[in-house]
Amino acid sequence: MSLKTLLFRAISRENKKILNFTPLLVRNHYEDHKNDVRNKFGKTAIVLFGSVLVGSAVKEKLSETDKKEELIEAGIKRTDLPTYRADEVSKHSTKSSFWVTYKHGVYDVTSFLPSHPGGEQILNAGGYSIEPFWNVYGMHKTQEVYRLLESYRIGNLHDEDVLDHSDDELWAKEPFRDDRLLVKTAKPFNAEIPPKEQVQHFDTPNELFYVRQHMPVPELDAKCHKMKIYLKGAKNKEFEFTLKELEKFKTVSIRAALMCAGNRRSEMNKQVKPVKGLSWAGGAISNAVWTGVRLRDVLLHCGVDPEDTDGKHVIFTGADMDATGVNFSTSIPLHFAVDPRADIILATKMNGEPLPLDHGYPLRVIVPGAPAVRSVKWLESITISKDESPSHWHQKDYRSFNPTKTWETADFSTAPPVYSLPVTSALCDPLEGDTVAVKEGIVTLKGYAYSGGGAKVLRVDVSTDQGKTWSEAELQSDPAPPRQHYSWTLWSLKVPVQRSVNQMEVWVKATDSNFNTQPERFEDIWNIRGILSNAYHRVKFCLQH
Amino acid sequence: MSLKTLLFRAISRENKKILNFTPLLVRNHYEDHKNDVRNKFGKTAIVLFGSVLVGSAVKEKLSETDKKEELIEAGIKRTDLPTYRADEVSKHSTKSSFWVTYKHGVYDVTSFLPSHPGGEQILNAGGYSIEPFWNVYGMHKTQEVYRLLESYRIGNLHDEDVLDHSDDELWAKEPFRDDRLLVKTAKPFNAEIPPKEQVQHFDTPNELFYVRQHMPVPELDAKCHKMKIYLKGAKNKEFEFTLKELEKFKTVSIRAALMCAGNRRSEMNKQVKPVKGLSWAGGAISNAVWTGVRLRDVLLHCGVDPEDTDGKHVIFTGADMDATGVNFSTSIPLHFAVDPRADIILATKMNGEPLPLDHGYPLRVIVPGAPAVRSVKWLESITISKDESPSHWHQKDYRSFNPTKTWETADFSTAPPVYSLPVTSALCDPLEGDTVAVKEGIVTLKGYAYSGGGAKVLRVDVSTDQGKTWSEAELQSDPAPPRQHYSWTLWSLKVPVQRSVNQMEVWVKATDSNFNTQPERFEDIWNIRGILSNAYHRVKFCLQH
Repeated sequence: MSLKTLLFRAISRENKKILNFTPLLVRNHYEDHKNDVRNKFGKTAIVLFGSVLVGSAVKEKLSETDKKEELIEAGIKRTDLPTYRADEVSKHSTKSSFWVTYKHGVYDVTSFLPSHPGGEQILNAGGYSIEPFWNVYGMHKTQEVYRLLESYRIGNLHDEDVLDHSDDELWAKEPFRDDRLLVKTAKPFNAEIPPKEQVQHFDTPNELFYVRQHMPVPELDAKCHKMKIYLKGAKNKEFEFTLKELEKFKTVSIRAALMCAGNRRSEMNKQVKPVKGLSWAGGAISNAVWTGVRLRDVLLHCGVDPEDTDGKHVIFTGADMDATGVNFSTSIPLHFAVDPRADIILATKMNGEPLPLDHGYPLRVIVPGAPAVRSVKWLESITISKDESPSHWHQKDYRSFNPTKTWETADFSTAPPVYSLPVTSALCDPLEGDTVAVKEGIVTLKGYAYSGGGAKVLRVDVSTDQGKTWSEAELQSDPAPPRQHYSWTLWSLKVPVQRSVNQMEVWVKATDSNFNTQPERFEDIWNIRGILSNAYHRVKFCLQH
Repeated sequence: MSLKTLLFRAISRENKKILNFTPLLVRNHYEDHKNDVRNKFGKTAIVLFGSVLVGSAVKEKLSETDKKEELIEAGIKRTDLPTYRADEVSKHSTKSSFWVTYKHGVYDVTSFLPSHPGGEQILNAGGYSIEPFWNVYGMHKTQEVYRLLESYRIGNLHDEDVLDHSDDELWAKEPFRDDRLLVKTAKPFNAEIPPKEQVQHFDTPNELFYVRQHMPVPELDAKCHKMKIYLKGAKNKEFEFTLKELEKFKTVSIRAALMCAGNRRSEMNKQVKPVKGLSWAGGAISNAVWTGVRLRDVLLHCGVDPEDTDGKHVIFTGADMDATGVNFSTSIPLHFAVDPRADIILATKMNGEPLPLDHGYPLRVIVPGAPAVRSVKWLESITISKDESPSHWHQKDYRSFNPTKTWETADFSTAPPVYSLPVTSALCDPLEGDTVAVKEGIVTLKGYAYSGGGAKVLRVDVSTDQGKTWSEAELQSDPAPPRQHYSWTLWSLKVPVQRSVNQMEVWVKATDSNFNTQPERFEDIWNIRGILSNAYHRVKFCLQH
């Protein structure tokens, strides 16, 4: 679907009469109706685009080209190049000739298409400005990407055709964020909890819980929010629940950590070779008590047969919307959704408080033990289907490959989606490069450990002599039963050190209740997306006696 | 409990009048009633002893002492030593003075007691002959153990006190075994399936299924076999089921691999340092379809509340009996037993046939995804209790430690029992040292992969260049859903080889549906018992073009 189609869709939802548009007509129509669209649909109806992958991919590409030191501004008028009208640009929207504009710049990016990490999503911008998309995916707005873009420059856009794509409104209503969070990207907002804060609280305070957004935060109202359930099959059925109606089901609270599948990606990046994705350190995991009702109860109420799950999926759709007018969505097998031991809930509270805006207010599905991406925020609908979610996030991400697979050879269509996370651990205090005061000959180490799929961490082993000997750490765990253990485990260990020792290298590894342990090195688990990055955590710091 | 108490118990079950015995009286009584006891109780009432641990432990101890090359026979009469009567020997049955006899030999093994790997079980033999115990645990009958025993020799037993402890009858009724099985120990019978047979059949033929016994195979009759269920608690309750009565519950078939927790132990042994236990290669795993009724259904029928499982356990007791008169037993948390997704069944059939004698005829509990020891054979009773099984096999084995823990520092009482197995894999064809004929430039590799706890193997990666590059193998899997996947996975890979290459080293690793992978090396997972030995499988062989 092209950008114009999206615009068409966004507008035509309100105005069913409009049916056929040329690109130019759409653009004109958009301009005419811009304010109307904004009013009706809020931020989410503003055309969006891109993928969080773009930033780092472009970075990699640039590292192969000459890097210039001077600051560059993309899209300024250049007298040495020809001028094009918008309708001319709009003709170049196919793979054989693909132009885009940015401010005053016109670019022929045909040859860039195959290496666009967001895949064919770039096609939505064909013959039009990429600025609205970059407004959503702020990580494009870097010197490296500007330089790459300008390398494809072929001309100037006619003054009369240059539109104001200011992103002020798009991001104006982002929620307040605690300034202790370690921001990885501002738009969309992605931020880690500081490691030393992680180990201070078994249940992370809401304001310190790490944040991972794909798009701007949608505006929803608990009082009028409705969640739809679609049962697809021989008989299509549809249900609708207000939050009040959901409250009629039994209330349950589940203690569960949520972890991004890309947590600890930065170590894979540093220790092996670059991967595509946000360069998370170990702060993309936090722990909370979630309160709501069981997804299983709601599905059974709607007539879902818990014995007939073979090959079926549950698609969760959030209110956050991407560039093509498609809402964020992902899915899990129905088998998990109706498993009473899987403890999947439709949550309205986080640590006893209403869900914060950043964490899915007013309704979020919590899929404990799975990568956090499956715990869809701002939940608008649930669809039972024989197919997995068709979304880009489900089909083209959160799948794993061996270290040899490249973006060219990796086949996302056959790689199984990640529905459960492997065992991992990290030292959070002290941190790499710290200088630690030794107290009475002792250094205290603190960290977390976690395993997905309901597995409980049973042991955390720590070595300060590069694996020659290992000491068992003390564990702080949730008392949940072993195959329903969805919380993280905090650990600590007091290590005696001799006066002569001025530096320490700590290795940490955890063993879970399936007796799986972490792999030693990142080399053998490296993968193009840098997910599932769970080799031993190795940290060096200095000692002060 | 001492040997004499055992004898007393064995006899007094039949003859309730006999109450107090001195050791000598017991011995005499035993002699008087020997035939009677054998007739009443079959093999299992013959005094048993020992632990499968002993053999390798003694081996290790001996490796520290001088090894002599000449063959030695233990217990022959020696003219250079004094003669003792049985009643004198029987006085030395405490830790401060501990004597045993073997044929004509008398031995003061007081100083050996602390290093007996079977722990305090040796105390049962105090002041008496160890021969009946060794008849059960045939791995004692080696040159190394004879030599160790003779190093403790202090005298001769008086001719009149030397008893005939022939083991003919004890093992006379062992079942027929296929001679393709690779025998690790004959008494008790422990044998691997040949690796190349493993990959020939997705469901292992019954006669090739690996065998792991702790004691002689008991004689049971399906027609009159009864299984008891004991509910311990405020109200003790007792139930009894014939196999006919069990058939009233819904019949289910589960495809599940069973794997010994010590599978692949030999690699840990070779690549790091010795461990205690049967030196299994990769042949202590096989796959079958098990048919029976759900344990959950039977327990619910008996009034077990599936919502009240906290801290409760299900103890399974087999008909095979140890030296102290205690039947083999182990337990699992009740939480698992009532989990409908755990697929635990009371099986009477294996691959459509009645259970073979070696595999638990006529009734065996199958706990898929757990170490095979939890799938108790010759099932006699099930006890719901607030305690785990008190048996030696449960309390002192099948628990895991980090590589630094020694037999002295390992605390079995705090180490969690292994209820689920980690992801593993092996190359089965070709084998280490093989010479493989290259066909049209291709070598075909075949093996298995497995993960416990219901996890499915999603990927098997193979490297022929020591981890530089990895290729994905083709998988043959059971279609069971991911968290209820209890079968193994067979894999194969065609590897192109150049004419100039005459040797190949293959590394294999699997990734399961929790995205756990195998650790690279055995060094960091080594443990005193050599269980959970799941590092990469590394195999070298020659190529013939």
